Amino acid sequence: MNIVHIAPAWISIPPKNYGGTEVVIYNLIEEQVAQGHSVTLLAPGDTKTSARLVSFLPKALGEDGVPWYAHLKAFYHLQKSVEYIREHTFDIVHMHLSSASDMYLLPLTASLSVPRVMTLHSCFPFDRAGSYIGDADSYYMDWLADVPLVAISEQARKEVPYDLKFLDVIHHGLPMQVFTPTTSEPEPYLAWLGRFVPEKGAHLAIAAAKEAGVPLMLAGIVDRHLPDAVRYFEEEIEPELDGERIKYIGPVNMEQKLDFLSRAKALLNPITWEEPFGMVMLEAMALGCPVISFRRGAAPEVVHHTRSGFLVSNLEEMVQSIVRIDDLDRAQVRAHVEQHFSVKAMAERYTQVYRRAIAIHVRNHWTRPALVAPPIVHLPVSSTLISKRGDLASAVFPSLTTQFPMAETEA
Amino acid sequence: MNIVHIAPAWISIPPKNYGGTEVVIYNLIEEQVAQGHSVTLLAPGDTKTSARLVSFLPKALGEDGVPWYAHLKAFYHLQKSVEYIREHTFDIVHMHLSSASDMYLLPLTASLSVPRVMTLHSCFPFDRAGSYIGDADSYYMDWLADVPLVAISEQARKEVPYDLKFLDVIHHGLPMQVFTPTTSEPEPYLAWLGRFVPEKGAHLAIAAAKEAGVPLMLAGIVDRHLPDAVRYFEEEIEPELDGERIKYIGPVNMEQKLDFLSRAKALLNPITWEEPFGMVMLEAMALGCPVISFRRGAAPEVVHHTRSGFLVSNLEEMVQSIVRIDDLDRAQVRAHVEQHFSVKAMAERYTQVYRRAIAIHVRNHWTRPALVAPPIVHLPVSSTLISKRGDLASAVFPSLTTQFPMAETEA
Repeated sequence: MNIVHIAPAWISIPPKNYGGTEVVIYNLIEEQVAQGHSVTLLAPGDTKTSARLVSFLPKALGEDGVPWYAHLKAFYHLQKSVEYIREHTFDIVHMHLSSASDMYLLPLTASLSVPRVMTLHSCFPFDRAGSYIGDADSYYMDWLADVPLVAISEQARKEVPYDLKFLDVIHHGLPMQVFTPTTSEPEPYLAWLGRFVPEKGAHLAIAAAKEAGVPLMLAGIVDRHLPDAVRYFEEEIEPELDGERIKYIGPVNMEQKLDFLSRAKALLNPITWEEPFGMVMLEAMALGCPVISFRRGAAPEVVHHTRSGFLVSNLEEMVQSIVRIDDLDRAQVRAHVEQHFSVKAMAERYTQVYRRAIAIHVRNHWTRPALVAPPIVHLPVSSTLISKRGDLASAVFPSLTTQFPMAETEA
Repeated sequence: MNIVHIAPAWISIPPKNYGGTEVVIYNLIEEQVAQGHSVTLLAPGDTKTSARLVSFLPKALGEDGVPWYAHLKAFYHLQKSVEYIREHTFDIVHMHLSSASDMYLLPLTASLSVPRVMTLHSCFPFDRAGSYIGDADSYYMDWLADVPLVAISEQARKEVPYDLKFLDVIHHGLPMQVFTPTTSEPEPYLAWLGRFVPEKGAHLAIAAAKEAGVPLMLAGIVDRHLPDAVRYFEEEIEPELDGERIKYIGPVNMEQKLDFLSRAKALLNPITWEEPFGMVMLEAMALGCPVISFRRGAAPEVVHHTRSGFLVSNLEEMVQSIVRIDDLDRAQVRAHVEQHFSVKAMAERYTQVYRRAIAIHVRNHWTRPALVAPPIVHLPVSSTLISKRGDLASAVFPSLTTQFPMAETEA
């Protein structure tokens, strides 16, 4: 197939030391190229990819020091990308919804004649900027109502508070040849890896490790653009660091990460939110490192309890699991990822989704008039407007408000 | 004519106690309706206007507590506005470029079949968000290169660091019947009115008033979303307030403003930047209150030296002018505005600009192929890209890089 991806402009592909969405985009595209697809990637100039790269910005905005809330340059990348697509021929546009500024893509691509698919990498609300969280996501559902979506876990799909059109749930995949353990003999430490924000539970990992009497190594980034993240790190993490039992080794690049996780007894993942995936769990398991995670978010979909790690309900159970960690066979831990989270399977499932999106697009294009939202005149109460508009749409095109039809043209 | 205005979504129209652009939009539209045009205003639901109002947001974002850097909701308003225009018939779209988020309008309206005009209300750079100032304005010139612009002063036009297409300079106008002096006997105080930011020189007004030995009343807003503005007020202004000789009376609404300026001996305007207009000078003069301004920005275009006020070069000259203020005839001060800054003249000049924009649009539409910017592939240094693209455009369409042709079809 002739596929074009529009990447967010914020983080390098692949990411230097942080970026979940950007890892997935990188892995998916490498595999799509390997499977023989023609792939174009619209992304900043510092991207590394086997696809054809087209850039409108010289480097990722995060690398350039642009704060997350400064949307205009990100919009420029997206707008130029859509213009590029309009002037070229593709079978499918794959978009990635990861942060607020990606929402601009939806109206920008609405009038393209090529079918679209969007992966929902993050969680609602998207009406946020810096520490501000707005109330306008319901407005933007206009833009999303008609877009075939892919969720990254059943959990992520379940958490969406709107009636959107999910074509499928596709778990992330990992390239096993990259994620090869650097040792078969782990060392006696526990690992925690992530961005330092309370939801990722670094402070709970510290508590569990101290209680179990096992050293803990923490790795990852402190986002200096987010005052709350800086405060959390300085107040809750730094005072616990003793350089020995509880140690912070900073951000890790890919090579360092492979070694850090390969050598760890286990990865602790005491998340305090419904995390939509949790790529780090996959990475640890691929390297033979079992995961002890709170039973929240997508963890039950990712971790095979008692085979590739332990799912626990609280700190006490986490401590008990730390003690039992040697019961697990590290080869089996790795095999779990190999069997269920390969990039090959991920890419193949996306190809199936593309085929369905194309079939739906063709059918809609030939059998339905364009859906034109009626303008709103002199009605200042937005919630009323939205529901009225929804009613009207469903009256005119009933099938739009129900499930997407399955395409008969699937291969 | 059948005119549609797209207003920014941030500040109410007319503004409650601050908003230069929003005052101008309000005055212009009221006069356009009075002159018999059919006018549609796309603006939030709390707008007051004699035009036909179409709203996509219930109220101005600033009234709703949305910080300036949270662009997505502003974009929603603009995107819905453009969609509305696409589905209706107008002779001309009048856009207003006032803050960074208005830049989204340019690509959004690029494919409209109706001609566009944009008033440049503010100054470059527009690549800014909160305290962040970016370097990407040159990228966005792609979007602006083809748009007929109106500057609000010769000064504003001169300051633009890019080769853009200005059709005209149109000074703001004031409705004289609204700006009627509330007294013919001014009181012995000087006035300063504005947003508290260093460029507007409230601290210098205080210094001049103290030196001259005349009381000063300050009025205006402290933008709580801008930490620099809050710091400036707390450190440079507040310590000077004694409630008697130097007094701050808070923000003023229209009624309060009319009285505040009518009763003042003079307005001090010791600006420290090249302010593109300075609406407050016009408002003061209309009320018979002479203006003593630094000879910067558009002040020489707005103030008639020795007739409607004094243009001075430094604080010492400002103090000397305060002493001489009774030399000026307050009726003459008002007459200066009546003669040179009427809303009638402003609206008529805009009608002429619309006619020229329409003529240019028709000519371009029928005689030139669409200008398609060549895509950029694998060239990460943006400055090179921009200059290359500019060269190409000028080679293909030489007249685009010179002055706009005058339309022969003007009435």
